[in-house]
Amino acid sequence: MGRNPIDQSSGIRWKPNPALDLPMYRQIEAYIRQKITTGEWSAGYRLPSQRALAAAMGVNRSTLVTALDNLAASGMIEGRHGGGTYVTGSSWHSLAHASLPNWSEAAQEGSYYPNLPEIQQINQAEFRPGIIRLGTGELAPELMPNAAFNDILQTLSCRTRTLNYIEPQGSLELRKALSLHLQTSGIQASPDSILIVSGSLQALHLISVGLLPRGSAVLLEKPSYLYSIHAFQSAGLKLNGIPLDEEGLDLGHLDRAIQIAKRVSSENGDESLPLLYTIPSFHNPTGGVMSRERREQLLSLARSSGISILEDAAYQELWLEQPPPPSLKAHDLEGRVLHMGTLSKAVSPGLRLGWLVGPVPVIRRLADIKMQTDYGTSSLAQEAAAAWFADGHHASHMTWLRPELRKRKAFMLALLQQHFHDIAEWTSPEGGFYIWLRFSVEPLSMRRLFHACLDEDVLIHPGYLYDRLDTKHIRLSYAYASFDEMERGLICLAHAARKLL
Amino acid sequence: MGRNPIDQSSGIRWKPNPALDLPMYRQIEAYIRQKITTGEWSAGYRLPSQRALAAAMGVNRSTLVTALDNLAASGMIEGRHGGGTYVTGSSWHSLAHASLPNWSEAAQEGSYYPNLPEIQQINQAEFRPGIIRLGTGELAPELMPNAAFNDILQTLSCRTRTLNYIEPQGSLELRKALSLHLQTSGIQASPDSILIVSGSLQALHLISVGLLPRGSAVLLEKPSYLYSIHAFQSAGLKLNGIPLDEEGLDLGHLDRAIQIAKRVSSENGDESLPLLYTIPSFHNPTGGVMSRERREQLLSLARSSGISILEDAAYQELWLEQPPPPSLKAHDLEGRVLHMGTLSKAVSPGLRLGWLVGPVPVIRRLADIKMQTDYGTSSLAQEAAAAWFADGHHASHMTWLRPELRKRKAFMLALLQQHFHDIAEWTSPEGGFYIWLRFSVEPLSMRRLFHACLDEDVLIHPGYLYDRLDTKHIRLSYAYASFDEMERGLICLAHAARKLL
Repeated sequence: MGRNPIDQSSGIRWKPNPALDLPMYRQIEAYIRQKITTGEWSAGYRLPSQRALAAAMGVNRSTLVTALDNLAASGMIEGRHGGGTYVTGSSWHSLAHASLPNWSEAAQEGSYYPNLPEIQQINQAEFRPGIIRLGTGELAPELMPNAAFNDILQTLSCRTRTLNYIEPQGSLELRKALSLHLQTSGIQASPDSILIVSGSLQALHLISVGLLPRGSAVLLEKPSYLYSIHAFQSAGLKLNGIPLDEEGLDLGHLDRAIQIAKRVSSENGDESLPLLYTIPSFHNPTGGVMSRERREQLLSLARSSGISILEDAAYQELWLEQPPPPSLKAHDLEGRVLHMGTLSKAVSPGLRLGWLVGPVPVIRRLADIKMQTDYGTSSLAQEAAAAWFADGHHASHMTWLRPELRKRKAFMLALLQQHFHDIAEWTSPEGGFYIWLRFSVEPLSMRRLFHACLDEDVLIHPGYLYDRLDTKHIRLSYAYASFDEMERGLICLAHAARKLL
Repeated sequence: MGRNPIDQSSGIRWKPNPALDLPMYRQIEAYIRQKITTGEWSAGYRLPSQRALAAAMGVNRSTLVTALDNLAASGMIEGRHGGGTYVTGSSWHSLAHASLPNWSEAAQEGSYYPNLPEIQQINQAEFRPGIIRLGTGELAPELMPNAAFNDILQTLSCRTRTLNYIEPQGSLELRKALSLHLQTSGIQASPDSILIVSGSLQALHLISVGLLPRGSAVLLEKPSYLYSIHAFQSAGLKLNGIPLDEEGLDLGHLDRAIQIAKRVSSENGDESLPLLYTIPSFHNPTGGVMSRERREQLLSLARSSGISILEDAAYQELWLEQPPPPSLKAHDLEGRVLHMGTLSKAVSPGLRLGWLVGPVPVIRRLADIKMQTDYGTSSLAQEAAAAWFADGHHASHMTWLRPELRKRKAFMLALLQQHFHDIAEWTSPEGGFYIWLRFSVEPLSMRRLFHACLDEDVLIHPGYLYDRLDTKHIRLSYAYASFDEMERGLICLAHAARKLL
């Protein structure tokens, strides 16, 4: 972890200066002392490992240890049984009888689950210089419409705008643009039935706390993106995974799960029906597409059983050869389907811009909660997004992007054929970003594979992030790594896998 | 409510076209039928009132009623006992045995509290054309730095940027700029101890779910901004209001409240200590400033009792004559104080840009939850904010803004003297936006005053939004309304108050 000049996991960007008169270990001591006395490293804080600290500061381990020993002697830090060096609770502080806040304990309180450790590691490691990201769910910087955004900013710089608060559902200009844009997918949605959100993750969060009672069931594909985040679990919802076949959700399983959920609800004396979360087009992580027939059967099952559907259309537009079957929302004449879209996958994740389409009472309720959560999405992001659609950038970007993604997909498939043909299986996706690689050899620990690759600065997304019991898959993405990185990364991955076998 | 061409409460921007061959009532019928059959107006949806619908569509009530009667006859809508017209549950739908989703009921589920009805009305009414906003907590559009933002967009349009996801704590460039900016308030905070948030409301939300166990106590000034939102209550926290005197929080009361909270915790077998939320400078809603001495005493009480403090510095820079005493965080050498800042009050609320400063373990934990909530604040907003500080816009804007606010404050105080001298009391604030007007005559219902003013297109913020039991105050702001609007609005308010007496 410590080989990078900026070590994100230690968070330290400071180095002692060898040109100064003060010895290096004294400089380090002063630096850490200042971190502690200003309270940034509060009581109970666990210092980064000696290895990580020494690497981040560019010093020998022995120099660091001298500094740490001095700090320990003055009572500011202490080693603990079981390892680790911690800021001490009280004795260093000059005020007698002071009771120090222990934020490290407080940070374990609170009702929200932390991210899975691997997700935290991935979130951090993604910003390590030189890391090869083989599974990342976003476009490479060079595939993003940088020139178009410069045009948009140029245009916006000549306009007057509102820097004030925006109305609860989001900018009307943007909702009008989206209403038109959704028509291209066969979805009729007036601006009143659209809520602008700060990325579709926020839509999930709002739905989880705003529409679904604690303890209620959410049905979903297994594996699913939704297993890799805690938005629903933190709201006390139970995830119930349904297996997939080649055409999508297994409807026999789904039907049985609905019946069970209904029985449980009725035993608890409530009438609530489960919600189905689905990614019908270019599924995350499998890359699969739900067939047209399966979509119709699913809507029919939803009608007969009474369940509602949350359709995640994040990847819908990222088809490579031909568009996927029409979205579930396009065939919904009852307001049974909530439909989520986003600019994060095809345009820019950093913009944090998504939308939710649904019946007016749902949209109003969620807009009210959104106002309580963040007072609306950034007006600048909304203004840029409205211009993105209105000025025709979206259509031309998609036309440019598809062949680029086709080339990358073909390149990754060729590498897989070359290096993995005897140890893994895969299918060629028709769109989206992902190849769901299945190792066909055993025993091979995905956890060990993840760490072995990370040690070589190659970041992969193990399958258990998307299905806790998965032991065979990793999610690969051809959207992020450069051709050269793909080659080096996949060779490293194949090597690590063979070594672990 | 129906006198505006765009009626936000009905959400309808459509009008029948008299030039068409189809009679107006048939056009209305077709419009509503389409809303229902596409599911936008889902089963159980309550239609806007006839008055609101007729006004929004610009038709006679009788034309509307003909259309509604036809829809009722076809079974699509129905009147209910107790009033209101609703989309019917099932009979209109051609599919037999279909069980329709009832989102209106679902929208009452979920664990998150809805906003107070008055807050919802305020959120909506603020976007009514012609409304006079006497209590709004944001700068008037003409006081915002529009030209500077055009400069910033111009600058950004010539740069390359990342449209990708941003690291969990937010853009390093912005955190470095903020680290420098905070030094001007005497706060030493490295970029690692700063979390970028989508407005300080989001920081409150993250703290409520990330640091505080359900059921724990939060102490705060009474009245307080925090009573007007549900961020903390929705996370199951208990608010415990402490009275104010002229120098700020009453520390005797605070000490007793801490002792009680400790006793309750220990009876429940936990060790958690209450958190104190405070707005020491230019308090919302009272406008008061905690004295230097009181700040020192408060920090000393916090040390001896062990509680932590959340300092909301939203208005800190908006001093009019001289800066307030140093912030609590500037005197915090233990990491006991979390410090929240924002661009929303002095610069732009629409940008949705705030920051939280605190010990590294707290910042990391909250960054992890933020990643789960919205994957970070919009990169475009962060980029603009970094340029805002780095290019020196902030200092020059504040220098320009202060005299403008002084003029507005003086104007409002003169109007109050003229129209309220015999019915209310107030003090002259030294900064921020607010005058906490106290009616000295009884009986006067603040609820009725709110609605009487709203009927005249004047929006006020009644005191009970900030203290449920308050019966005497309203929060006025001199930051939003124009001079002309202030005059018309305050005359209307004085008139309404006298009429209700």
